[in-house]
Amino acid sequence: MAELIDSSLLTLAHRIESRDISPVELTQAVLSEIESRNGELHAYICVYGDDALAKARTAEAEISGGRYRGPLHGIPMGIKDNFYFKDRITTMGSKIHERFVPDTGATAVDKLESAGAIFVGKLNLHEYALGVTTENPHFGDAKNPWNLTKIAGGSSGGAGVAIPTGLTIGSLGSDTSGSIRIPAACCGIVGLKPTYGRVSKFGVFPEAWTLDHVGPMARTVGDVAVLLDTVAGYDPKDPTSLNSPATTTYGALTGDIDGMVVGVNEQFFFKDVDRVVADVVRDGIRSLESRGAIIEPIEIPHIEDAEYAITIIDTSETSTVHHRALRDRPQDYGDDVRFLLECGEIPSAVDYLEAQQMRARLRQSFASVFDRVDVLAAPTLPIRTPDIGQATSSINGHSVDTVEALMRLVGPANLLGLPSLSAPCGLIDGMPVGLQIIGPPLGEQPVLNAARAVEDSGLFAVTELPH
Amino acid sequence: MAELIDSSLLTLAHRIESRDISPVELTQAVLSEIESRNGELHAYICVYGDDALAKARTAEAEISGGRYRGPLHGIPMGIKDNFYFKDRITTMGSKIHERFVPDTGATAVDKLESAGAIFVGKLNLHEYALGVTTENPHFGDAKNPWNLTKIAGGSSGGAGVAIPTGLTIGSLGSDTSGSIRIPAACCGIVGLKPTYGRVSKFGVFPEAWTLDHVGPMARTVGDVAVLLDTVAGYDPKDPTSLNSPATTTYGALTGDIDGMVVGVNEQFFFKDVDRVVADVVRDGIRSLESRGAIIEPIEIPHIEDAEYAITIIDTSETSTVHHRALRDRPQDYGDDVRFLLECGEIPSAVDYLEAQQMRARLRQSFASVFDRVDVLAAPTLPIRTPDIGQATSSINGHSVDTVEALMRLVGPANLLGLPSLSAPCGLIDGMPVGLQIIGPPLGEQPVLNAARAVEDSGLFAVTELPH
Repeated sequence: MAELIDSSLLTLAHRIESRDISPVELTQAVLSEIESRNGELHAYICVYGDDALAKARTAEAEISGGRYRGPLHGIPMGIKDNFYFKDRITTMGSKIHERFVPDTGATAVDKLESAGAIFVGKLNLHEYALGVTTENPHFGDAKNPWNLTKIAGGSSGGAGVAIPTGLTIGSLGSDTSGSIRIPAACCGIVGLKPTYGRVSKFGVFPEAWTLDHVGPMARTVGDVAVLLDTVAGYDPKDPTSLNSPATTTYGALTGDIDGMVVGVNEQFFFKDVDRVVADVVRDGIRSLESRGAIIEPIEIPHIEDAEYAITIIDTSETSTVHHRALRDRPQDYGDDVRFLLECGEIPSAVDYLEAQQMRARLRQSFASVFDRVDVLAAPTLPIRTPDIGQATSSINGHSVDTVEALMRLVGPANLLGLPSLSAPCGLIDGMPVGLQIIGPPLGEQPVLNAARAVEDSGLFAVTELPH
Repeated sequence: MAELIDSSLLTLAHRIESRDISPVELTQAVLSEIESRNGELHAYICVYGDDALAKARTAEAEISGGRYRGPLHGIPMGIKDNFYFKDRITTMGSKIHERFVPDTGATAVDKLESAGAIFVGKLNLHEYALGVTTENPHFGDAKNPWNLTKIAGGSSGGAGVAIPTGLTIGSLGSDTSGSIRIPAACCGIVGLKPTYGRVSKFGVFPEAWTLDHVGPMARTVGDVAVLLDTVAGYDPKDPTSLNSPATTTYGALTGDIDGMVVGVNEQFFFKDVDRVVADVVRDGIRSLESRGAIIEPIEIPHIEDAEYAITIIDTSETSTVHHRALRDRPQDYGDDVRFLLECGEIPSAVDYLEAQQMRARLRQSFASVFDRVDVLAAPTLPIRTPDIGQATSSINGHSVDTVEALMRLVGPANLLGLPSLSAPCGLIDGMPVGLQIIGPPLGEQPVLNAARAVEDSGLFAVTELPH
């Protein structure tokens, strides 16, 4: 059983396609592992055991009958519990929505289901996705499988825990300020926040609508590319959905980066970064150079405005979504989320609009950067993975706010809607370290190719798993 | 001389084309009239006498040489002083910008100049366009030519005064919350605020950038159509510029409205309207019916939110533009403008974003309205033209704030970016009354055709001028 769930999504897909294993067998293995480990890890909020097995039997019959749909067919999967499932409770990891039953499903969920994925349950998250640790007072703190005293990262922390432990075979996350890439970095997996609007957000509970993204998380770059191909595309139900031609991802995933120009920005992305983390990430960047990439030092004008701008925009939009509930039911939020929502009531409209003006100026900065480079490479996080409950972290001997540090280097890609991926590139004291690759709008392909090159370098063994 | 400037732009254009009059003769007539009347009317902030005459001589030579460019060629014109003229002082009607010299011209100005218009000077406006009366403490209060004790309306009040008096042969205005249509209604001319983004705002000083529009003002509907054709179109220098196919305006201006469905909304657009004004406007609407239009009573869901939403959005964006200057030089603003800017610092980001959510909901309301009707017809103003300095106005015996009343019925078209035109449709005690026609996005053609039908009805004689 353990051998089964130790594989990447694509390995399992090939075995299903060749009828070496059956969806029923795989789903049973995943459900059994959830049964044995979820009490400790808090990866899942709820599990659909019988329903998943019934669907696995249908998939098995379809595949036996020669109707194989593609690499998601028969793959058991949990989904973050802020993605709506039609007629099924979707909690957002909250008390306030603990009995909420949507009357429509998320477009991304529908696409996965049409591709043949089998949903085994809903994954834990930071309450309403409003935090980056997945410490959840209502459904339990997600535990990092590499070290149970450490955070899984968030807000897509349930997926972060479940992917490397085989409790889900790949998944999706939502990412407003790092929520896919932070748990990917903490848990040693690959997470991609695509270009703003590339994947429909219809049916995903909003956090801050000009910053919200949906994207894939999985063990390997290939898995992530296949998941992106499945869920990307224009959706008239999402007013922010991009109506642009599809760009191939998995099909063009060669890992060939000969001549690719990789920008490295010291001024922001390597400033105030834990020295050991920076060394591991620089090794990852050197592995790109050794495969033919050209490393280019690059300045990014006004990048110092990014953190202020995203803070004002994120908290203001978030507090707009929760404005009435905060007034009516403040006691039903967790303490950290309630404090965040109270803070979001403070900025003035002028503050918000000035932040949007900074954002417009930064958009021009990054446009000029991507005239010179194909992708940027940087650390995902400036700190080592903190312990659960650890309010401050140490960077080279001085103390910083843990939450601020976790969001600092991943936020700019949300502010500007740029594709950004975290891939594991090494270990420090047995904990994975993430390398972040950022591309221009719709530049998922070079981002994925660079990530594949890192993966191929062997600096982090995808077979090396925490259990 | 007076006979010359008593004509519409198109009448004069035909006479120039046929060499019945020369641009020099016409420019001299306009300059002479400005000389004799501007001291009283405060229509112009500055006049370019010699330069205009030199350009008129060039135009005359071109036309005599057979190089006639079209209906704007050789037409003398003043422009509101918030449109940038390259290397010439552009004051915004303010003290703070009294010596400001832009290094680039407004796109709309460049287009008029390329079409052969001759600029004779810069027209008065409410300081920074931040008001609707054109009472200006720095450059004098614009006087309504129909009754010098009454406001011209604003903020494009200089154009409102200059057009019916022949101090300019047509013009442009900017309109954020009625600033083209309010002076058009007060001064008995035609003013069109086109669809958001249809005319470039590049080089026009911003007021509230999601509400700002540029559009034509003139004596007749035909004049307005020709001016729109000249200045409309995509401009890469304006990020909000619409890149949509050009739709014919003057060429398709038939005034044929047989079968056109004209919506009339009582609940908002005839609520709390001066009874005598409402009667004159209803006569205008009946004139449409007598020409074959179908009058359709229509509800507009959530229209009651429009005034709150535009107030929050307008003041918040405006105060963002002036944020630093208000802090550094508060004493250099007029009292009313300073108060407005101080008010705009008050809304929270959540207030602003909730107002934007109301706007999104209203956009859907109007989309469903325009599934049923071709245009809406309504009063432009709910009150009779107030006196200069009159803080409150009477509506059917009760007192209302004058500024609030002037903006109330014109604001929704700014909030939703819809084309909206005011055309004179009668007189009350010798003062013109405006009928407002609102169309769907890019629906300038039906708006102009309905306005032409009102004009053809003869309820307001365009030959009847205030001087």
